[in-house]
Parts: sequence; structure tokens; C-alpha cells
Amino acid sequence: MKFLYFCAMISQDTICAIATPAGNGAISVIRMSGKNSFLIADKIFFSIKSDKKISTAKANSILFGTIQFDDKIIDEVLVSVFKTPYSYTGEDSVEISCHGSVFIQQKILEILIKSGARLANPGEYTMRAFFNGKIDLSQAEAVADLIASSSESSHKIAINQVRGGFSKEINFLRSELLDFISLIELELDFSEEDVQFADREKLKVLIDKIQQKVQSLMNSFKLGNVIKKGIPIAIIGEPNVGKSTLLNAFLNEEKAIVSEIAGTTRDAIEDVIVLNGIQFRFIDTAGIRNSVDTIENIGISKTFEKISEANIVLYVFDINKVSKQHIEQKLQELETFITEKDKKIILIANKFDLSNESKKLEIDSKYKTIYVSAKHKINLEQITETLIKTVNFNINSSDVVVSNVRHFEALTNVNQAIVEIKNGLESNISGDFLAQDIRQALHYLGLITGQVSEDEILGNIFSRFCIGK
Amino acid sequence: MKFLYFCAMISQDTICAIATPAGNGAISVIRMSGKNSFLIADKIFFSIKSDKKISTAKANSILFGTIQFDDKIIDEVLVSVFKTPYSYTGEDSVEISCHGSVFIQQKILEILIKSGARLANPGEYTMRAFFNGKIDLSQAEAVADLIASSSESSHKIAINQVRGGFSKEINFLRSELLDFISLIELELDFSEEDVQFADREKLKVLIDKIQQKVQSLMNSFKLGNVIKKGIPIAIIGEPNVGKSTLLNAFLNEEKAIVSEIAGTTRDAIEDVIVLNGIQFRFIDTAGIRNSVDTIENIGISKTFEKISEANIVLYVFDINKVSKQHIEQKLQELETFITEKDKKIILIANKFDLSNESKKLEIDSKYKTIYVSAKHKINLEQITETLIKTVNFNINSSDVVVSNVRHFEALTNVNQAIVEIKNGLESNISGDFLAQDIRQALHYLGLITGQVSEDEILGNIFSRFCIGK
Repeated sequence: MKFLYFCAMISQDTICAIATPAGNGAISVIRMSGKNSFLIADKIFFSIKSDKKISTAKANSILFGTIQFDDKIIDEVLVSVFKTPYSYTGEDSVEISCHGSVFIQQKILEILIKSGARLANPGEYTMRAFFNGKIDLSQAEAVADLIASSSESSHKIAINQVRGGFSKEINFLRSELLDFISLIELELDFSEEDVQFADREKLKVLIDKIQQKVQSLMNSFKLGNVIKKGIPIAIIGEPNVGKSTLLNAFLNEEKAIVSEIAGTTRDAIEDVIVLNGIQFRFIDTAGIRNSVDTIENIGISKTFEKISEANIVLYVFDINKVSKQHIEQKLQELETFITEKDKKIILIANKFDLSNESKKLEIDSKYKTIYVSAKHKINLEQITETLIKTVNFNINSSDVVVSNVRHFEALTNVNQAIVEIKNGLESNISGDFLAQDIRQALHYLGLITGQVSEDEILGNIFSRFCIGK
Repeated sequence: MKFLYFCAMISQDTICAIATPAGNGAISVIRMSGKNSFLIADKIFFSIKSDKKISTAKANSILFGTIQFDDKIIDEVLVSVFKTPYSYTGEDSVEISCHGSVFIQQKILEILIKSGARLANPGEYTMRAFFNGKIDLSQAEAVADLIASSSESSHKIAINQVRGGFSKEINFLRSELLDFISLIELELDFSEEDVQFADREKLKVLIDKIQQKVQSLMNSFKLGNVIKKGIPIAIIGEPNVGKSTLLNAFLNEEKAIVSEIAGTTRDAIEDVIVLNGIQFRFIDTAGIRNSVDTIENIGISKTFEKISEANIVLYVFDINKVSKQHIEQKLQELETFITEKDKKIILIANKFDLSNESKKLEIDSKYKTIYVSAKHKINLEQITETLIKTVNFNINSSDVVVSNVRHFEALTNVNQAIVEIKNGLESNISGDFLAQDIRQALHYLGLITGQVSEDEILGNIFSRFCIGK
């Protein structure tokens, strides 16, 4: 019902929104889409030096004129005209390019609403593009990722997904499964004759191939998720070893993109930095930055929490106050706690400048040790180099990397269904049951691209967008 | 020389800039203008579903495709194509509408620069429009005002000026003066014959008419300047009467557009608020907001400085602590200081809620007295109403109001030249000298529209713009 309501609403309404970032600029763009777009635009737009109307303008053409309302001229504008189905939403739509004053933007929006349009909801443009078959659901999701992408690598994944790279893989899996089910269903049609058309051995080979592909996509999620959110780094160490100084010095040194983001856990502040096109994310730096990193405030459990979230652990110590034995013992404790193989520990020997220069701890060479002075900004570039080297991943434009947790969950369910199919094949269950499991797998694949859709999922997806997209 | 260099540079270079406000949004627009725009765009733009090229596209048409560089796809974009002379700058130009991620915006800009464009200077688009004869100088200046306009009234002045309303007045004055000079010059051609073709009485009537027009424009500057910058309000009063509480309460109450701007004098912080389409500006609120409004910190001279700058003075007192006599004496002191007739004093009797309700001071009714409680936000709306009523000005869309100090100065010089002409006419000086004064007046009028231009002036004007305009 709700879904039908959605569709009905979409075909009737004309929506409008400011599409460019908020604030003053040279120009701003206001979008309007829906079946009355041209009608509404004609009411307020007056061509200069001609009597052209929006409704009779050619598709993909630009008109120059004024926006007028109540006999007042609001601005001189350019209007781009797009005709169904050749627009972003698939509907008739216009883009008004006005002078970039906040006052003018608001005024034009107000006039459009007074003339019959309504303010668009977040993501409503892209939702209409989806409902009108311009893009599938995974492409729609990638649009939001593309806008949010702030590093070379996250951009690469998003643009590939927008352009349908991921959809192609999913559709390939679907067609393989449909081949499979067609064989089974042929058998079902003749079930009373008790024959097996489908060679069970061939089926096993086919399902193995499908499973391999599903699992390779699932494996890519680890990389995709980390690229999208940034590679998590934990800074740990005893009080007063200079963790706070190190973090601040490092972030200031790298003039690149540095921003504080509200983390996923409450109260957690995370600093994000882009090095060499890769995004890194310092986990829960609130405590560190506020210099309340005393034992009481951080505590063991908090430290372990941070370590478990991180891909890279920077273990900071004051080289003037610890012995090789102390560090080695601490590392042993850390290692017993860390179960994942690919977690990397980097040792930061701070306050190096105060020590006897020849003092080196000669710790097991499997740990990279960097001797720095956070206070005097000595050797900080070695940390940068080591971080980049540590995550040396290469993604090609054509690589399909899953970066969306919703897709990962759907793929996990597909994989589960495939395991059931395999078990069924092993134990020679009837075609009926096999077909049921295959339909299950097809269902979950369909959820990814939106061929199967649920209201709640759609609501979640499009509410993540900004208004105007 | 410098001017010629300017022109040469303009004809050769192709410039590019992000034209929409900074930050993430649904879409962003990147502009490129200059004779190689199409050539550069063809290198990086690839049409989807056709083999259309920018260079062969129709004027005022839109193409859909990808931006590619080094075999990498950066984004799917729309490109608007404008051909000389029918573009903002008058040159061949394109506008690339991309996904509004900061990363993508920067990347495309980088690619354009690598492909042969250079980053535009602030205002360079509008400067090209001026040099290519698309707009005159006063219209160019109004573009910056239009973008900065944040209230109904400042917008109205700017849009009228952009559309050439002001230029029309100036050109009218020029043509009147040219009529005048043609009469004089006819006389000069026959000077040896010592005849007076030009009837001196008729000349006097004509020059009176011109002067009237010039002075009416000059008079409009007072209004224009105040509308553009906001109507200055001073809040004065003895310590601890609640000036700070009042200001904060008032600004919070009016959820409209409130912003702090750096004032013209150093260290001065000014709060701006828009009420009923009119911008108001509280002068030097730094001391007030920081609650350091003790006698030592503010002092008499500072208070008088604020009053002299203000159009409206809010005189705040604690109604529980003053007598009618005290207020009347203070008002008398104020009045001796205020020489301008149109300065308005409004009395704010604060802490009204603590007083005996019947207590009214019965001060001379020429002063509006408003009884408020800043702390409990009682009667603050009466302040709003009074402010709006006080400045009840009405500007029609067609009214020409001078709002630019450069134009005002030029008009002052025009007026000075006209005074000289009048004196000359009175004392019957020769046609030579009259012609000289008229040329002086024409020179200053030409400076306004840019028919006469000076490098320094141009530099000043266009450096005020944002990049991309």
C-alpha cells in the first residue's frame, strides 16, 4: 500500500529544491521536476529579447530571461529544459541558474512553491530516477556515496557503482542462478515421470562458481568499508608519553584534508586525514585531544576497545622512560589480545630528541619502530610514509568493491541460501526444495538492485541524501 | 599600457573556476570561458550514447557525458554550451554541472587547468563581460551587490542596477550635457566672429535641470548606503541596565537572518538582523555582548562615537532606578550632541516586570518609550514594530537609488563641475572655459559606467568579487 502511495505521489507532484551547496557564490542552481514543471516555470519566467516559453522550448536547451513574481523582477537567470524521459529523474524538469545570493535562492524557491511546486524531500530526485527506471537501487545509493566521497579511493568505488559496475556483477549472478533454476524447473514440470533432466554434477559445478563470485564480493567489503569510512587508527600508550602532542603535530603537519567527524559511538570524536588519496581515521581522539589521558580516564577496557576497532595501532612511548623489556612485555600482552592477523602495530618512540642519540631499543624487527619528537616535529613524515606503505592497496577503475553494509548483508544472505542449495544437492533433496532455496538467493540479489524492494529499505536509503539530489 | 595588457590577456586566456558556493551539495557548477573553452572541453568530455562534441554542439544546448582524464572516469556530468557573443562573458564558454562532492569539483578544476585553462581571478568573468561590452561598469558592480544582498530592499536596488536602471539615468545625464556642449562648440567654431549662438538663458535652464537630477541621485545615496549596509542602531545606557541581555534576547527572539559581521572600525563587532525586508545593524556590539560595559570601558567618547554613527539610538535604562528628571536631563544632553534632525531616539525602560506595574515615566511623548523585560522577553516585539515603523521607506522596482560610494563620489565631482558651469554662465565666461567644465562633468559620468576607465578603479572593483563570477 505504502509503496503504491509512493508511486502515485510521484506521478502527481512537482518538486523543487536548491541543488547547489548552501551559501553565497557566483551562481546557484534551483531544480524543479514533475509533470507541471514547465507550466509552473512559464508562470514566472520571461525570456529576454524573444518570446520563448519553457513549455515550447527544445529539450536540452537553455533560455535566458528574468524570474518575475507580483510584477517584481527577482533575478536574471538561465533555465535549462529537460524533457521526459531524458532527464535525471526521467520527468519533465528545469534547472534555474540564478545569481548565488542566499536571498535570491530563497526567494525563487518561495515563488516556485507559491506557483504550485512543493519542496523536495531529501533524496527525492534520485528516488524518482529509481522509480522511473533511470537507475537501479545500488546506483542510487552510490550517488550519495559519490557526493560524500572525499578521497581518491572512495571516489573510485562510488563512480564505478554509479556507472553500474556493481549492478552488472549482481545481474550476472542473477542470470547464472536463473539458468540454474530453469534446469530445475524443467525437471519439476515432468516430476511425475521421475526423471532428472538436470545433471547433478553439472549443477554442483555451476553453484560452486556462483558461490565463489558471491564470496569474492563479500571479501571486497572489508576493503570497501575501510576505504569508505577511512582506515581506523588507534593511538595508545601510557599517560604523559605525548599522544596528544603527537596527534596535534601530525594533523597540523599534514595540511591535507583534516576534519573532525562525529563518530559512530556516542561522544567519540574522530580526526580524519587523507594521505596519498587514502582516508585515515583516528579513532576516538576526544580523550587524547582534551589531554585527559590519565589512567583513570582511559582505562584498560577503553584502550582494548579502540584496538579492536583499529586496523593500525600506533603504540606511543617515551623512549627516555622505558626499557626494551617493558616494551616487549607490553607487545606480548597486545599480541595475545589481537587475534586478527592483518592488524598492524607501529611503535612510536617519542621524545627522541631528549635521549642519548644512539639509544635504539632493538625491538623485534617485525615491528616498525619510528623515532620521533612530537614536540619539535621531527620525523613525523616517517609516520606518513609508513601509514601509506601499510595500506598499499590498488583499486582499478573497473574493480567491483562492495562498500555498502546493506549490500554486504544481502550478499551474506545470498551466500547462506547457496550453502543450503549445496547441502540440498549433496543430500539429493527434491527439485522443489532446491528451487525454493534458489528463489531465496534471487530475492536477496533483487534487494540489492531494487528489483525486489521494501518500503522501509527505500525510506532508509533516500533519507541519507541531501535535499536537491 | 596596463590597460592594453589587460585586454590582450583577456583575448588569449581561457579561465575556469568553481561557480557555485563552496562545500558538498547535490550538484556543483564549474565554469570555463575563453577562446579555447571548446577545445579544452573536447579533450576531457565524452558524450554518452552519442559521439557529440562540445565544439560542434549547438549554442545554448546541454550535453550529457563523462569527464575523463588519464583513462579514469571522474564523473557523469551535464555540459552547457554558450557561444560568443551570446554568453555571460561574451566569449565561448561552457558550464560543467557535476556531482557536488568537493573532491570531484577540485578534480575537474585540476583537469581543466592541466588541459590548458587557468584559474580565474576574482571577478574575472564579470570583468570580461565588461570588456566585451556585455554590461557597463555600474552594472558589473551591481552584480557583486546582488550576490551580497541579504534583504528585500538591498536586493531591489541591486537588481535594478544590474538591469541597467542606474546606467540609463547616467546616460540620460550624459546626453543632456552633450546637447549643452554641442551648442557651446558651435559657438567656438565661429569664435572669431564673436557671436553667441547659444542663448545663455536657455543654457541656464538646461544646466539647472541637470543639476537637479544629479542632486536627486546624490540624495538617494544616503538611503542607498543605509539599505546596503543596514540601518545603524546604537544601544546606549549606563552600566547594568541590561543592554547586553536586551541585545541577546532581541537577536534570539528574531529568528530571522542574524549574523555577526566585522565592522568597518577595527575590533568592532556588529550584529545584523533583517526585519520586514530591511536590514538593521547594531553598531559595535563587542563591548555590550562581552558584558564589559562598565563606565571605564565604554566611556563618554565611545558612546558619542556610536551615537554619531547611528540612525536610531536605543537608550536603555533600569526603570526601577531612575527618575523622570534623570531621564529628561540625559535626553537634553543627548539632544545637544545630536545635530542631525532625522536621528531617532527610542527609550527602552527595562526591568519593567520588577517595578510597580503602574509606574510610567510620562516622558515627553515625542520620545517613544517601550516598557520591556529583556530577561523575561516581555514586549520585545514592540521594539521590532517600532524599528520597522521608524524606517518606513518604500522603494519601487523602478526607483534609482545610488548605493555605491564610488558612484556617489563621481556624482559629487559631476555636481562640482556643474557648479563651475553655473558660475561661468553667471560671470559670462567664454565658451572655451564652459566647454572645459562640461568635459569635466562628462568625464566623471563616464567613470561611473566605465566609458572612461582607470586601471586602479577596475582593479578595485573586480577584486571585490568572488572567484567564479
